Amino acid sequence: MSTRRTFLHTLGLGAGLSALAPTLLSATPSKTAAGRPAQKLRVAIMGLGSYGTRVAEAMKSCTSAELVGIVTGSPEKIPVWKSKYNIPDKNVYNYETIGQMKNNPDIDAVYVITPNSLHHKHVMQVAAAGKHAICEKPMADTAKHAQDMIDACEKAGVKLLIGYRLHFEPYTRKVIEMLRAGEMGKIMHVDNYQGFKIGDPTQWRLKKNLAGGGALMDVGIYCLNAARYLTAEEPVWVTAQETKTDPVKFAEVDETITFQLGFPSGIIATCATTYNFNFERLYVVGTKGFAEMSPAYGYGPLKGRTHKGPLEEPVVTHQTLQMDGMADIILNGKTVTPAVDGYEGLKDMKVIDAIYKSIKEGSKKVMLG
Amino acid sequence: MSTRRTFLHTLGLGAGLSALAPTLLSATPSKTAAGRPAQKLRVAIMGLGSYGTRVAEAMKSCTSAELVGIVTGSPEKIPVWKSKYNIPDKNVYNYETIGQMKNNPDIDAVYVITPNSLHHKHVMQVAAAGKHAICEKPMADTAKHAQDMIDACEKAGVKLLIGYRLHFEPYTRKVIEMLRAGEMGKIMHVDNYQGFKIGDPTQWRLKKNLAGGGALMDVGIYCLNAARYLTAEEPVWVTAQETKTDPVKFAEVDETITFQLGFPSGIIATCATTYNFNFERLYVVGTKGFAEMSPAYGYGPLKGRTHKGPLEEPVVTHQTLQMDGMADIILNGKTVTPAVDGYEGLKDMKVIDAIYKSIKEGSKKVMLG
Repeated sequence: MSTRRTFLHTLGLGAGLSALAPTLLSATPSKTAAGRPAQKLRVAIMGLGSYGTRVAEAMKSCTSAELVGIVTGSPEKIPVWKSKYNIPDKNVYNYETIGQMKNNPDIDAVYVITPNSLHHKHVMQVAAAGKHAICEKPMADTAKHAQDMIDACEKAGVKLLIGYRLHFEPYTRKVIEMLRAGEMGKIMHVDNYQGFKIGDPTQWRLKKNLAGGGALMDVGIYCLNAARYLTAEEPVWVTAQETKTDPVKFAEVDETITFQLGFPSGIIATCATTYNFNFERLYVVGTKGFAEMSPAYGYGPLKGRTHKGPLEEPVVTHQTLQMDGMADIILNGKTVTPAVDGYEGLKDMKVIDAIYKSIKEGSKKVMLG
Repeated sequence: MSTRRTFLHTLGLGAGLSALAPTLLSATPSKTAAGRPAQKLRVAIMGLGSYGTRVAEAMKSCTSAELVGIVTGSPEKIPVWKSKYNIPDKNVYNYETIGQMKNNPDIDAVYVITPNSLHHKHVMQVAAAGKHAICEKPMADTAKHAQDMIDACEKAGVKLLIGYRLHFEPYTRKVIEMLRAGEMGKIMHVDNYQGFKIGDPTQWRLKKNLAGGGALMDVGIYCLNAARYLTAEEPVWVTAQETKTDPVKFAEVDETITFQLGFPSGIIATCATTYNFNFERLYVVGTKGFAEMSPAYGYGPLKGRTHKGPLEEPVVTHQTLQMDGMADIILNGKTVTPAVDGYEGLKDMKVIDAIYKSIKEGSKKVMLG
């Protein structure tokens, strides 16, 4: 690793920079004493599809991260991105040349935003190039692959973060904060669902070899991840059911899945996800109150209420906050709870594996952990 | 059977009375041409607990039904009810003397509001006495008992109705009407839950021999029944999970159960019920819209909204409407959809049996029908 960050740390300036860096939810740019911007995390985006574009746009407003490079298999996109985001030629890679990024000191991290089942291969490449990896969720197609990715990043001495943008999002954080403060009392039940009517039948999300799975992997993971951060527990068993009302369109991947998670304290979280209709809600109820968000998982504005009344948090661009937060984690060793590291992603993947297993076994209870 | 109703039918006046009788949701008293009240269903209440009292109070406003008798095992309640509801001595029975009701032409029907696992025995007694039976839900503790009750009432030539008060309730009926009219498009998913924190640990609801089961039987049945009337389909499979966070209080009956129903069209209904915390909601989503009610199953006022905006239906006393509607069914052969007959109750009981079976078998899918 030979990055500016490492260099500054070597000079003993890391701690000073850390103190000057923006805090996780700060909205104003951080400046050094001399008025120059504080060091930023220099990011390349791998995969220039619609979500990659959304992240690139959001990063324009980042104070601690900046888009400096791209990795793409679509040569026609290069001139567009170069001019739109001021990317120098030397920071442009494709899937054959990415290994050479090792010799590029001007890129700190790569955000992998490729089809889900390629995350494993691509994060391995990023680690091999000695760059920090930020990987979209789901982090992989199986828990086995997720573990490989963690191992590879640890071995390479780079960080691995998963794109759990809601862990930085104000409505979500407010609900978590209220739960942890005991404002809902003892948590008794969670009921989450998230799904949408998917369009273009030719897209990668419907191809098993690219997507790894269907609605569960892509959006059901929000319900699962939320069940874990709402309860602050890890599930000990899972049961699941599947239905396919359009077996032609969803020939290769799951359309609609319902699943239930049993937690050590006795909470059962009931969840549902689909690619075939629109619904979205987070719900947690305790002995003293409840929280409900709907929409709860999309790009916002989110909306919610508790037993105390409407939630009224700042409306932000999730990806801006996420990338600033992740820069703070990578550059300054900051931690965030709920976590966004590889182990967090692995926990979800283990449950996803178990959900598919339960479905195969006629909904039978699959024990975890 | 020798009731005024039978007598009038014999005279060929049944049809005429039917035309004069109040329609199901009419709020104004029906009068005969001569200005006298139309014939009313003369009801005895069996079981004078808190819900029996609620029904008695509600019947004061009925136009087609009247409370004329009681069946009770608590002698101390007799003078109170006699004076409060103007019950004549000859219409007062206990569980030993109820057989003698056969010779009383002034009672048409008995509303059985005793602990759930006694419904079977008591409806058999009502049928044996030649009276129409109205039975609180759940109609029995098992499907086997429910079938016995249907058979006994058919053999005795009396009607058997189950206390599905929401089938008469305006918010519920409005949602069903919108669904049937296609306003939500093709129905894709249902998510219902209903539960409450139960008080007195010594009450019959927590005793297996009186209650038959716990939250599932008592309040989970609302979610199940709603899933059936929202979809207008019968489930083909069921899966279920149980959790007990207070094994002392809920030593004999189920505390919290989550269950899933698979319908022929591919809809999965996800449901949850408990005796250990408060939550209550009905939710149905289709390709063109949704309906949500919360509260959805209590005594009202209920509250709800659809994709078109808030539901604003008349706020009524559910039990008044129910008893007038049931009088219309019994006296005039009126039908109501969703049904409130014994077969409707039996369908719920078959699913409840299957839910307990699935729990015993580690949540495995239990096929129905």
